[in-house]
Amino acid sequence: MTGGAEWVLGVDSGGSGLRIALARAGSEERPSGVVCSAEPVRTGPSGIDAGHLLGQVLPAVRALLEAAGTRHVAAAAVGAAGMASLGDDLRARLPDTLADELGVRRLALAADAVAAYAGALGQRPGAVVAAGTGLIALGTDLGPSGIWRRADGWGHLLGDCGGGAWIGRAGLEAALRAHDGRGRGSTALLERVREKFGPPAELPGKLYPRTDRPAVLASFAPEVARCAPHDRVAARILSEAARNIAEAATAVCPREGDCFVAFTGGLLRLGPPLMQPLLAELTAQAPRARCTEAEGDPLDGALRIARALAADNLRFPVDGLMLHISERRSP
Amino acid sequence: MTGGAEWVLGVDSGGSGLRIALARAGSEERPSGVVCSAEPVRTGPSGIDAGHLLGQVLPAVRALLEAAGTRHVAAAAVGAAGMASLGDDLRARLPDTLADELGVRRLALAADAVAAYAGALGQRPGAVVAAGTGLIALGTDLGPSGIWRRADGWGHLLGDCGGGAWIGRAGLEAALRAHDGRGRGSTALLERVREKFGPPAELPGKLYPRTDRPAVLASFAPEVARCAPHDRVAARILSEAARNIAEAATAVCPREGDCFVAFTGGLLRLGPPLMQPLLAELTAQAPRARCTEAEGDPLDGALRIARALAADNLRFPVDGLMLHISERRSP
Repeated sequence: MTGGAEWVLGVDSGGSGLRIALARAGSEERPSGVVCSAEPVRTGPSGIDAGHLLGQVLPAVRALLEAAGTRHVAAAAVGAAGMASLGDDLRARLPDTLADELGVRRLALAADAVAAYAGALGQRPGAVVAAGTGLIALGTDLGPSGIWRRADGWGHLLGDCGGGAWIGRAGLEAALRAHDGRGRGSTALLERVREKFGPPAELPGKLYPRTDRPAVLASFAPEVARCAPHDRVAARILSEAARNIAEAATAVCPREGDCFVAFTGGLLRLGPPLMQPLLAELTAQAPRARCTEAEGDPLDGALRIARALAADNLRFPVDGLMLHISERRSP
Repeated sequence: MTGGAEWVLGVDSGGSGLRIALARAGSEERPSGVVCSAEPVRTGPSGIDAGHLLGQVLPAVRALLEAAGTRHVAAAAVGAAGMASLGDDLRARLPDTLADELGVRRLALAADAVAAYAGALGQRPGAVVAAGTGLIALGTDLGPSGIWRRADGWGHLLGDCGGGAWIGRAGLEAALRAHDGRGRGSTALLERVREKFGPPAELPGKLYPRTDRPAVLASFAPEVARCAPHDRVAARILSEAARNIAEAATAVCPREGDCFVAFTGGLLRLGPPLMQPLLAELTAQAPRARCTEAEGDPLDGALRIARALAADNLRFPVDGLMLHISERRSP
């Protein structure tokens, strides 16, 4: 089997930590081993700290290589949150270090959304929406002059429309509308606020001093989904979220040809109260879109990119920021 | 003239500093003197710092009294932002100190919204909306068992719907929608973003690290008003803001009898693009409301409350938090 003896490395670096996987290059089989670290890579003055990432990745890979009975990695892909804007240190230091230490000849440095895309759709043209606390959509037509199209991902004050913080915030507002006797309020959501946060009057004091306000807002999204089947206001919040999510997906869909669309991230856990209006909105806004289950997660995506590099069949747009490729000669 | 020889004191304490005015008790004529301080009163562990307030108020009043050729203040009213939730130190220390130092027999401690109400409507039943960066509505029917009704004022993440930060935020979102190619975007607002903040991609980095995010958001509200006459999306943001503001006013309007409604605060400066839909919305939502110009500002309101105390004809609800009254015997 061509490349059956080669190994590839995938790394997924995000806000909750690192995952590192070693897999065979020549097949789509599961990784031979995965190492997880709950220590998120530090961001310093020069962006994401390459030394801190390497300090966790190198020992993990050496252990994985030893367990697999090999010593070299043919290709590697690192997907990291903030790669496009904060990845300078990674782009400067990872290619040489991974070549010297692990024999990596080909390295991809990818934005987390690119890794999510690769995991969800592989090298198919379309759009992937990654929706958790925030929300970002990424699409490509994989054409010869293809680019990555991005939509939203602007954070909880400027956008992330339809994401977890957006839904939770709208739910809290609807609860306080009911508390005040203003229009468009929901007594069902007000009841959920009382149970979850205590007296409504104390809510500002519990939210504004926090540094993780988006997460606090997003923590109320499941309550909105719980109320939606029997509360008109909650249902309307989710249908408006669905409209926003479909708008982001539609904005990045390829303009012609095939268009596969997948949704990934924690927001999917809200289930049918969100997903039913979302599929209806997507059909209305992007009739060509073919909705599909995400095949894998961002770590799967990083492994797929590494395998494509090893097999020399990477078709994703390489723009140096969302996706950066470097090559080293064999030693 | 009854009470013509008596003097009253009004204080307006807010985020941008202090204003202190001395006026005759028995007439509505302008204050004989006003002292302004640009030093906002500190908030400490026990709330608004009474010592810091007194340190500014006492010398100012002594100078005003001397200029007026008198030595005693019959009644005083202090309106302060945060009075209801952070006014414990003021309620504990001001009555005795002002009685001892200035001979004040009757003292009112009022939330800033109560002072704004008194300034705008005087002792008439109705609703006042104070709208600047944030938004709060306050109403009362002045009945024998009357209460203050409050609506909104929950801050930029939970409410303040229709206020300056709300309008500016919606405008920035619409600009970024156009940037992404998402639905409901405005290229006119995107152009304003470029002029005001530079490249859209840099906007998150300019907003999120700030501690005065609501003010940054509100700084874009005038651009929305400027675009509204020729941009459908901007006009829609202002009509939705108008709907929200009218909802807050309607929620606090007296349930029966007269209902005067006044709008105060910097948001009025947005002019017809906001005020025209606002008056239409208010008519639709609260047909009994009689829209009226605000007669005065919160400092005028504090003087009015002090005059009503001196003349023993205060009709506002005294609930101990929004409005707290204390009385000391004559020395």
